[in-house]
Order: sequence, then structure tokens, then C-alpha cells
Amino acid sequence: MKVSEIGEFGLINRIYRKAKDKSIIKGIGDDAAVVKIGNKLMVVTTDTLVEGDHFSFDYFSAEQVGKKAIEINVSDVGAMGGVPKYALVSLVLPKDIEVEVIEKIYSGMREAGDKYGLEIIGGNMTHGNQLVIDVDMIGFVEKKNLCLRGDAKPGDFIFVSGDLGASTAGLNLFKNNKSGFMGVKKKHLEPSAKFHKVKPFLKYINAMIDVSDGLASEVKHICEESNVGAVIYKENIPIKPETRHAAKAVGKDAVDYALYGGEDFELVFSVSEKNLKKVRGFLVGEIRKKKGVYLYNNGKEELISKGGYDHFKVC
Amino acid sequence: MKVSEIGEFGLINRIYRKAKDKSIIKGIGDDAAVVKIGNKLMVVTTDTLVEGDHFSFDYFSAEQVGKKAIEINVSDVGAMGGVPKYALVSLVLPKDIEVEVIEKIYSGMREAGDKYGLEIIGGNMTHGNQLVIDVDMIGFVEKKNLCLRGDAKPGDFIFVSGDLGASTAGLNLFKNNKSGFMGVKKKHLEPSAKFHKVKPFLKYINAMIDVSDGLASEVKHICEESNVGAVIYKENIPIKPETRHAAKAVGKDAVDYALYGGEDFELVFSVSEKNLKKVRGFLVGEIRKKKGVYLYNNGKEELISKGGYDHFKVC
Repeated sequence: MKVSEIGEFGLINRIYRKAKDKSIIKGIGDDAAVVKIGNKLMVVTTDTLVEGDHFSFDYFSAEQVGKKAIEINVSDVGAMGGVPKYALVSLVLPKDIEVEVIEKIYSGMREAGDKYGLEIIGGNMTHGNQLVIDVDMIGFVEKKNLCLRGDAKPGDFIFVSGDLGASTAGLNLFKNNKSGFMGVKKKHLEPSAKFHKVKPFLKYINAMIDVSDGLASEVKHICEESNVGAVIYKENIPIKPETRHAAKAVGKDAVDYALYGGEDFELVFSVSEKNLKKVRGFLVGEIRKKKGVYLYNNGKEELISKGGYDHFKVC
Repeated sequence: MKVSEIGEFGLINRIYRKAKDKSIIKGIGDDAAVVKIGNKLMVVTTDTLVEGDHFSFDYFSAEQVGKKAIEINVSDVGAMGGVPKYALVSLVLPKDIEVEVIEKIYSGMREAGDKYGLEIIGGNMTHGNQLVIDVDMIGFVEKKNLCLRGDAKPGDFIFVSGDLGASTAGLNLFKNNKSGFMGVKKKHLEPSAKFHKVKPFLKYINAMIDVSDGLASEVKHICEESNVGAVIYKENIPIKPETRHAAKAVGKDAVDYALYGGEDFELVFSVSEKNLKKVRGFLVGEIRKKKGVYLYNNGKEELISKGGYDHFKVC
């Protein structure tokens, strides 16, 4: 059986094994792993950019690639309620790559890292056919701030920290050689972690995840890990007018980008009713006992069967 | 300028920046980074296997690839005097790879990990043209056991923990389709970390590094970081008879494999004269003030100008 037949999450289920060590608060199955080191909670994650899959030098500058490599990992640490501290950078480099390109990637990584007080403490370089940038990030989280995917409770409201769909809209503008829409394109080229938006009210959040593969997919992850279901109110999904226009320009619906696209890196979080006034964001749905993630629109609910972006499946 | 013109270490020098944070005991420039977390010293490293560069399924089984991915990182943690604890696994997978191959790679990783009480706590999977396995490893080291490359002192003796050259000999047997020499071939297919050999006398070691790129290259790294020079006694380099025979079978000299080959994962360490009797291993040279790494043979010394294995240069 080929990996393209079972997809990314099918594969994760096949290789999953529960961690045995008691110091491991959270292993495989969240935005980052959480381990107890002395009296500290350490957050560890890794995310990879592959040329051609995650970026193209046709429209990304090398600095932007470097920034993206850092921001996507900061986003994962932030989605646990954590603050990043150290990074390791593994590069797989084609032999004919220009040294200046690598220097610019590093310059972008450091510019992004400096925003967060993050230090690159090590890494590895080796040769391959295709440029691969793998960043490992280590951060810390205060116990009261820790937000796991599995902490959503029936009755919780689902929030998203900002507008969705712009990154996928930007990508599709590039793929279709559409001029204009610079703001939307920039959302694709310069994604950034949104942890600062939720930091003031972290302790009121139950479950949290970042939007890397689309709202539908992220809410599904929360539901699977929390053993609950959810309904998403289609009309409430925050999408900017320019994102809608950009989608329309390539014959697509921006709501699909928001639900099934990805790389917005906004945070999706659940909050119990009693804490509704303590948080800020866009209320886009509700957690409930009934399993499955449904989309509510015009008085009707439909089960969302489609997944988010999957690196191995075409969807 | 292409990366192949300046090589791996030229590139590292170009992107190097000294870490500013005081919690960073050792950043870029050793087998692993070392950071202070509360009252613990944490060791963090990452190493990558690329199909075609670091292994070929023509002669490696998927389990062996998985084991190798773990052992090379355990070796790096061990070279700091540390004990591994957690790993993250980043995979870049071609879409047509069989699920069973990935399961076997994981099975190999877990078998190797279980030897060390190591847990895989997370990772990432994405798509690419070429199979890439990147492992990030986190371990801990007791302060008295920490061995940095930069701690060698003039007058120290240089030891190696075991015989060298077999892995490169094995690789060249495969590349030349030579039958036989199963023991030598196995050294290439199933490398293992050698930390257990030095563990009993860690506190008597000054500088340490593992042999991933050949003895000459590793001694150079120690010398550069310690701001010293060294002489290696050619006759003393431990090479097994079967390694010599295997090298001869493809028209090569096993001493070259030991000096400039790699992946033996034995440990090279320096020890001051007063502690000579406290350690075990093969005495292969001496640290001295005079810069440069020299090879002593038949009453003559020659400067070793050639580097070790470099992923970007042909050497």
C-alpha cells in the first residue's frame, strides 16, 4: 500500500505508540510535545519546508523562506500556550545551490527569531536533490497556560484569532499568475505566528491548535483528541473582502480556502461559556457531545467529510 | 558561489553567529548543543539521513535505516558525555513510498531507541522527491561528564575507543558489488553508538568527538575548537585485518578509510598525562601547541591537508 492511499493521518495512526515515560506530558498527537524537566514544562516541535511543496523561489525570496521556517514552528509552540527559546536547523541542500541563498535563508530565520528572543543553537547540513529546511524548536510553557488539543469540553465555544483563507488565496494567485492583490499575496509569503493575540487570556482557553491545514481539519483534530464533536457556523468564519475577491479571481470560493486550505497560522481555541467575556476573537462554532464536525449554514447542518490539506492525498 | 565550492564547514563559518543567551553553554560548533534548564544540562542535536547519500535500499533494510537514524544521534549526544532521552522524527516522504517501509523504519528506530530508554515524542511528515529522515534528539549530561571539542590541552594524549575504517570499507564493498566480507559490511549497515565504552571514565576525558567523518577530520575539529594542534601516529590507528583485506579487495588503503572515511561512530577523546591509566582505548596521537594536524609515520611528520568526508565537496 502506498502512503498516498492512507494519507498523512492514516500514516500517523499506523506508527503511533503511546509514550511510556512519566515525564512525557504530551507525546505524538498535538502541535508540539510537552515534557517535564525538573519543575519546568518544555515544549518541543519540528516542522519542515520542502522546496516545491511549501515554497517556490518563483515568488518567495530566500529571506521569506527563512522567516517562514521559523514562524511555523513558533506557531506550533504558541498553540501549546508556550514561548519559544531555542531552535536547531537541519538543511538538505542541492550541491548547486548558491551560498548567498543559504545566507539569506539564515538571515530571514534570525530576523524572525530575534522577534521572539529565539536563538539558533545548532543543526545539521547535508546534501540532497531538493532543498529541505527542517527546524526543531524548544520552548517553555507555564502549567496554567498549557493548551492541549484534547481539552475541549461539550458546551465550549470555538474561536479563531483572526481572518482565514488569505494564505491559500495568495498561493492560488501565484499559481494562476494573477497580478495585483499584493496584500493577499503577502499573507502567503510572510506568514506569522499569532500567539500574541491569545497570550492575554491563555488561562481561559481549554483546547487550542494553530491553523496549518484549514479550519475544518483543525477542529477535527480538537474533536478527535477531546473525544467530542463540533459545529462550525459557516457565516461566522472571518474572511476579509480582499480574500474573497482574490478567490473569485481564480474561480474559487474563499470559504473553501478557510475550511480546507491552510497556513493562516491563526489560532483556533475553545472556551467554556462562563469565560466567554474573558477572551477575544471570532466565535465560529461550538463543541458538543455528538461526534463529527458539522457545518451550519442557512438553518441546515452538513457533516464535513472532507479533510484539510494533506501532503500525501490530493484533496 | 556554489556551496560545493566552499564545502560544509566553509558554509557553517559563513552562517555562524555566537549565541547571546547565557543559558546556552554550547551552541553551534560541537556534536550537540548544551543548554542549562533549571539545574540540569540538556544536550540537543539533530542528524539527517538522505536516501542515496546516507543509505541505499539496494543494501540497507528499512529497519537498518531506522536504527541508523537513531544511533547516529545517540552517538552525538554520547560524544558530549550525555545520555539520550527524547527524539522527534521528521520525515520527507516520496508519494509512492510503501507504508510498510515507513512502518519498518519506525520499528528499527524504536528497537534502537529501546536500547537507550529513548522515547519518540513527536515529529512531522511531509512530501518530497527523496526520502529524508531527520531525527532531533534531546538528552541530559551531568556537569562533571560534559566533554566539549574545545577542552583539549597541549600534552593531552589522543585516544580512539575502537577500530576504524570498517564502515567505509563496507560501503565500498557494496559500491563495487564485492561478495563476502559480511562482518565488514555489517559495520556499515548497522552502526552503533559507542558511548558505553567511555562511560566508566568520562570524568577523566578532556575533549571528545565521535567519528562521523574520519579520524583526521575529527582531530582537526578538536584542534580548531581547542586552539591547539596534534600529531596522529599512523601505525597506532586501530584497523582490523578484515577491514584491511576488504579495502585491498577494491584497491584501496584501509588507513585512508580510517583517516578520511567516516561513520565508524567510535569516540575520539583527549586525556591529560596524569589520567592515562584511568582510561581505556587506543592511543593514537598527542595534542600540542604547534598548530595543524600532522601524521607521524616512519620517523617523519606530514601535515594532513585533506579534510574528512564533506557532503558538498568531492574529497
